[in-house]
Amino acid sequence: MAEDRVMQSLLLDFYGELLTDKQRECCELHFNEDLSLAEIAEQSGISRQGVWDNIRRGVAALEAIEEKTGLIRRFSETQKGLDELDDTVRALGSLPLGAEGEALAEKLRRQIRELRTRG
Amino acid sequence: MAEDRVMQSLLLDFYGELLTDKQRECCELHFNEDLSLAEIAEQSGISRQGVWDNIRRGVAALEAIEEKTGLIRRFSETQKGLDELDDTVRALGSLPLGAEGEALAEKLRRQIRELRTRG
Repeated sequence: MAEDRVMQSLLLDFYGELLTDKQRECCELHFNEDLSLAEIAEQSGISRQGVWDNIRRGVAALEAIEEKTGLIRRFSETQKGLDELDDTVRALGSLPLGAEGEALAEKLRRQIRELRTRG
Repeated sequence: MAEDRVMQSLLLDFYGELLTDKQRECCELHFNEDLSLAEIAEQSGISRQGVWDNIRRGVAALEAIEEKTGLIRRFSETQKGLDELDDTVRALGSLPLGAEGEALAEKLRRQIRELRTRG
């Protein structure tokens, strides 16, 4: 379930703008803000059933897009590759590199960190 | 124009599966296989005007998806970050690192290369 939430956040982050406004709004409030269906219904002025329909259809649309494009899978593989790069830089950093070498190893770590958060 | 072609190939690579079959087929033959509208018309059995409409609508749909999601822009920034990482590893490789350090620097280069082609 926790993993589902991570995936739903990724789906919204990647493809949320391709949903209808109502679908995106309901999905974001539910998955990112953790509001209940009743709370979203009250806040958005649509019925609880309407909120549920928007979430169900929104998630189905997001999952269909990922199944077709595989871009989140590609992104996840890149993140995994950056983790592996980071491990290698750490191994390198444990060697005696001299001042210049250590500065470059530190620069590598910073560049990898930036790539990771940028995604 | 050459840059347009690169962008159109990226758009197809990322989002091509979200087009209709006809749109994707016409766009791929035109942009990736470099066939003329007349050649595509002959091969696919639709009119030259039909081919053009499929390409025009396909490209508009692909551009709209990128404008909404920005995923190709994100991907391009990652590629640029990997280029910068590669520069740093090259600078490191020019230092005397010893056998173990050189093996790790070589491993970094290989990992960056894999990340680049994987995208």
